Amino acid sequence: MPKMKAAIFVEPNRIVLDEKPVPDVGPLDALIRVTTTTICGTDIHILKGEYPVERGLTIGHEPVGIIEKLGSAVEGYEEGQRVIAGAITPSGHSAACLIGCHSQDGAGTKHGFKPLGGWRFGNTIDGAQAEYLLVPDAMTNLAPIPDGLTDEQVLMCPDIMSTGFSGAERGRVKIGDIVAVFAQGPIGLCATAGARLMGATTIIGVEAVPARMEIAQKMGADHIVDFTKVDPVDEILRLTDGRGVDVAIEALGLQETFEAALRVLRPGGTLSSLGVYSADLKIPLDGFLAGLGDQTIVTTLCPGGKERMRRLMQVIASDRLDTRPLVTHRFKLNDIEEAYDLFANQRDGVLKVAITP
Amino acid sequence: MPKMKAAIFVEPNRIVLDEKPVPDVGPLDALIRVTTTTICGTDIHILKGEYPVERGLTIGHEPVGIIEKLGSAVEGYEEGQRVIAGAITPSGHSAACLIGCHSQDGAGTKHGFKPLGGWRFGNTIDGAQAEYLLVPDAMTNLAPIPDGLTDEQVLMCPDIMSTGFSGAERGRVKIGDIVAVFAQGPIGLCATAGARLMGATTIIGVEAVPARMEIAQKMGADHIVDFTKVDPVDEILRLTDGRGVDVAIEALGLQETFEAALRVLRPGGTLSSLGVYSADLKIPLDGFLAGLGDQTIVTTLCPGGKERMRRLMQVIASDRLDTRPLVTHRFKLNDIEEAYDLFANQRDGVLKVAITP
Amino acid sequence: MPKMKAAIFVEPNRIVLDEKPVPDVGPLDALIRVTTTTICGTDIHILKGEYPVERGLTIGHEPVGIIEKLGSAVEGYEEGQRVIAGAITPSGHSAACLIGCHSQDGAGTKHGFKPLGGWRFGNTIDGAQAEYLLVPDAMTNLAPIPDGLTDEQVLMCPDIMSTGFSGAERGRVKIGDIVAVFAQGPIGLCATAGARLMGATTIIGVEAVPARMEIAQKMGADHIVDFTKVDPVDEILRLTDGRGVDVAIEALGLQETFEAALRVLRPGGTLSSLGVYSADLKIPLDGFLAGLGDQTIVTTLCPGGKERMRRLMQVIASDRLDTRPLVTHRFKLNDIEEAYDLFANQRDGVLKVAITP
Amino acid sequence: MPKMKAAIFVEPNRIVLDEKPVPDVGPLDALIRVTTTTICGTDIHILKGEYPVERGLTIGHEPVGIIEKLGSAVEGYEEGQRVIAGAITPSGHSAACLIGCHSQDGAGTKHGFKPLGGWRFGNTIDGAQAEYLLVPDAMTNLAPIPDGLTDEQVLMCPDIMSTGFSGAERGRVKIGDIVAVFAQGPIGLCATAGARLMGATTIIGVEAVPARMEIAQKMGADHIVDFTKVDPVDEILRLTDGRGVDVAIEALGLQETFEAALRVLRPGGTLSSLGVYSADLKIPLDGFLAGLGDQTIVTTLCPGGKERMRRLMQVIASDRLDTRPLVTHRFKLNDIEEAYDLFANQRDGVLKVAITP
Repeated sequence: MPKMKAAIFVEPNRIVLDEKPVPDVGPLDALIRVTTTTICGTDIHILKGEYPVERGLTIGHEPVGIIEKLGSAVEGYEEGQRVIAGAITPSGHSAACLIGCHSQDGAGTKHGFKPLGGWRFGNTIDGAQAEYLLVPDAMTNLAPIPDGLTDEQVLMCPDIMSTGFSGAERGRVKIGDIVAVFAQGPIGLCATAGARLMGATTIIGVEAVPARMEIAQKMGADHIVDFTKVDPVDEILRLTDGRGVDVAIEALGLQETFEAALRVLRPGGTLSSLGVYSADLKIPLDGFLAGLGDQTIVTTLCPGGKERMRRLMQVIASDRLDTRPLVTHRFKLNDIEEAYDLFANQRDGVLKVAITP
Repeated sequence: MPKMKAAIFVEPNRIVLDEKPVPDVGPLDALIRVTTTTICGTDIHILKGEYPVERGLTIGHEPVGIIEKLGSAVEGYEEGQRVIAGAITPSGHSAACLIGCHSQDGAGTKHGFKPLGGWRFGNTIDGAQAEYLLVPDAMTNLAPIPDGLTDEQVLMCPDIMSTGFSGAERGRVKIGDIVAVFAQGPIGLCATAGARLMGATTIIGVEAVPARMEIAQKMGADHIVDFTKVDPVDEILRLTDGRGVDVAIEALGLQETFEAALRVLRPGGTLSSLGVYSADLKIPLDGFLAGLGDQTIVTTLCPGGKERMRRLMQVIASDRLDTRPLVTHRFKLNDIEEAYDLFANQRDGVLKVAITP
Repeated sequence: MPKMKAAIFVEPNRIVLDEKPVPDVGPLDALIRVTTTTICGTDIHILKGEYPVERGLTIGHEPVGIIEKLGSAVEGYEEGQRVIAGAITPSGHSAACLIGCHSQDGAGTKHGFKPLGGWRFGNTIDGAQAEYLLVPDAMTNLAPIPDGLTDEQVLMCPDIMSTGFSGAERGRVKIGDIVAVFAQGPIGLCATAGARLMGATTIIGVEAVPARMEIAQKMGADHIVDFTKVDPVDEILRLTDGRGVDVAIEALGLQETFEAALRVLRPGGTLSSLGVYSADLKIPLDGFLAGLGDQTIVTTLCPGGKERMRRLMQVIASDRLDTRPLVTHRFKLNDIEEAYDLFANQRDGVLKVAITP
Repeated sequence: MPKMKAAIFVEPNRIVLDEKPVPDVGPLDALIRVTTTTICGTDIHILKGEYPVERGLTIGHEPVGIIEKLGSAVEGYEEGQRVIAGAITPSGHSAACLIGCHSQDGAGTKHGFKPLGGWRFGNTIDGAQAEYLLVPDAMTNLAPIPDGLTDEQVLMCPDIMSTGFSGAERGRVKIGDIVAVFAQGPIGLCATAGARLMGATTIIGVEAVPARMEIAQKMGADHIVDFTKVDPVDEILRLTDGRGVDVAIEALGLQETFEAALRVLRPGGTLSSLGVYSADLKIPLDGFLAGLGDQTIVTTLCPGGKERMRRLMQVIASDRLDTRPLVTHRFKLNDIEEAYDLFANQRDGVLKVAITP
């Protein structure tokens, strides 16, 4: 039984590189030899024990790789193809999938809906920070990489771009919209890019880290508000001449940003939340206009599936966006513990790391 | 200068019937002789001083009447026509109106958006609890009553039906949806009717007052959950076999119902809030699925405008719905203080009162 | 190798009952013992050779039955369960499915889209007019029948109700809409019911057969226009006082009805087409308002998948609609050739037939 | 009574510059001193007598100017402000406006809908090719020009950009879509730009004029198909690897392009038509997939109103798009007959002309 290296959750504050058997391939699966992967903020929640997973699980949900072996029932792919799979791997056949709510896939459950059910890699099944990755429901999830794109060019597609873009998409950004994006970490940066791509004409990024401010402008921000220097609500109202924004995207997951996002909304606007929250939220009465403001608040879990991945890679291939500036550091899989240390402590201006075996 | 009787806000806890001049008619206005009106829960907030309005203002925003006089620039109507106007009277020409967000009409403001700006009657201008009512932007707002409909048949259209239905509409109820409606007061009852009208196949009303429970069934509820006897969250999950609801409509305005509405949502579901809140709200982390549940929360202010009113009256005229059971008491305008007393204290099973001069 | 009876397309104008082997069950399939099925207008097109299928194919796409055997990879069902499957059986994993366009499922094709690709039963694989039916992608397609519903109560769900309702759904019928439905055959009748269920307040059915007119009223039509007695365009404009309709549903598939549907639309309205056309269509310049009328024309292929089926059966189970009046004749599978003869010639006021083994 | 110069329709094939009284200003009007305007393809239809207007009417519907005088009831503007108004000037108060269908404004009509009713300038009232222009319903229609933008920078907003963009908007272009735009005249070029602005990643322009091909690339086209050299349907299918396009925009108004647009659609795609047709159209059975392809066909009349204009000017102000390359020729109002001659005969590579008094 062949072995492979994998980054395994041992206990809170301990993810270690260890050996595991290369997984068996079921009829609907595909085995991917991972060529590049990365670490997500969510992985740090897992590392710290804030988001519970089973001990012994391989972490990671952002794979780029090569098809090593296809399940007996998998059609339409070839071994050796370069592919990605989304962080979320819906089955395609649950009730949730059948009404387009793939991330809340409840395959096998009574009703076909399961909160976060589409998120399997590094959550309910072994993940991508390993030499090999078993992709379930391969025909729903494997997306071939267009010729000419490197691993790093598509590395943000499985999660960061898909999530960030969905902030703009769920906010239904329209041509001419004013959009504020709270926090310009990797996901906020992609939300900024998504808003730009959908036609927003005033994009305001809120951020305090100079390097992120700089990338935010590359990603499409027209204005950057440094919340350490001005009150972001006041400043956004000033920049919009008192109007407020059509869409406010919350990309941090804190009460403070959620509340500010609500307060800068024009009546009838949309707060699109990408944050992963770890505490109850408060909706302030005034920001909520007593419930009479025709407001919309939406949340999103990273959209997955091969068609989503195809479209995101097409954004890259068509030169609409280059996400390579987000990859600030590179590590070998052998050094992943070091990468975790850097990323968890947000040292050295790290945005995203590339991990290669 | 002719005088008329009007219910006037004097100070907190004092609305009195007094005399006022019949208003002058500007070029875009219409003067309506009110034939029937009613008292709204919002008026009670005003009465109690919880929602501030100017002293001396005439209260009320639900008019049924007859055109007495048309402004010089008003076309398309005739004096003597029976009409209603919505509680919300948008101008039609603000930026908010031009993108379909009429309730947040900001006519005359810098940007064309003003929170709750479309609500003028009994809020920023004199209202309907009077012998005469001046309707601004008459061409946007006056809707002729179809032949054969009585005042009481259309009395719920200006606010109660429009608001209640919008709970279902903003929730995008679809054929086959499971919908829960928290509280079966007048607006909740109309939300129930709206969900029924849009094709929901399981409608669960939450209520404890027997008379309201009974009307809820007439309005289309399939199940009634008595929250004094069972935990409504548990019971709704039980009734839906653990699935939760597609759309939860909150029609009371309390933390308790807001939170329960969130907790009964299936992943990907919509909480449609109709409540007028008077305090900050808490979003519980678990009900919010940590922000990862693809949830939607929407609020609504009663849609107005003549086309809305025409459609609602058509619902009545076509026998799709009869809202007369909601009118439980009748008063003369002369006795409106007595009506306020009954309604404010929710005595005698009152749902809505009809006030006639 | 066990044998079964099946209605087989032999050549144009010849569908015969013959014997075939009971199919083998692949890992993702389910074998259904058919307890009731029916004949569709499309089957008549096949019979007449107007829609080509392979010789030897079993016809029929409207199955009600019992699970006889489940594929090795199928989870969430039990043998012996009563189920239906939609006429359209999407895979769930194609690009088309992943963007919610399940009927145009292109599983296995290069791009994941294939015109009409979701329609497999009685088209590209053996169909339901047989003792046994192999359901592909069973987890996507099998929907358990709620307790207490008979076969005939759910017999319209796989195609007729799903297609008819989609006419109203794709037309985005709203509360208060005026809707015209051209032709009140089985699908038109269900379109009428769908429009009613979604809140249309004036529903005008166009039909000339008295028995169909009568059922149209049961299904929710407010007016019936007999096109043999009046010009339907004139009459609909008269009934709507010159306004035209918000949504016109074409449920016949002829130039005449398509054109009339366009002519009765108000500016900005939607023509929702359910017809299966067999010739080029002409869009008249005047009805098309020279291309400047903000019109929408939509077509639909019957939505399938288990969640769709669940919802439709829920419409029946909740007493929102009873489609049993559509079943006018009953036959044994042994007599299916006789049933074809009756149905193809539309004798004896036939609407739909029930076929039982 | 002061006089002004105006381009007047005298009879088919004769538009002449003549004198007219400067119009009186009603209470809701504004008088604009026109500083720049242009000629539209529609004006040529009028010139040729193909689109009938009253003799003596001033032509033109694309005004840039300065407020000379405001009606007595107009608030929120100042004399001397630089403004534009859309080609379409909705009232804001008709039923059509109240449901967001402003272009089909039926103010004053029985039902509030009138085909093309929002188009008044140079159609039912005097237009913009004059020294002064009376703008009706000024509060709905006047949009101040942002500081720093020249007349020529905003000259495309009233019609060309609004119409072109609406081709992409009504087609619901999404991130990652493949879009084909048939014809790269001024409107097709703006449709190309609109598709780009909304996130399309493959944009294919169909055109044969080299100068237009070149501008098409500036506007965002990824590929140009020269229909004189290849069959555009074949070529688009080749470029999309057989998939077809998600959205096909028809921007010419001919059977040939309409039909090609339908044939290149993937199943479930949208044909967004911007053409002004002058003959019946044929829908080919194969392109229409027999009515079973889940297709959508939409038409649009140029969206107007001040908020639309504000947003379009914001697109310019934010450097998302520069439409100045579309202005190829400049004329004085005195020489407008010469401009008509050039434009009507499409000489000298003309795209759009700027006319200044």
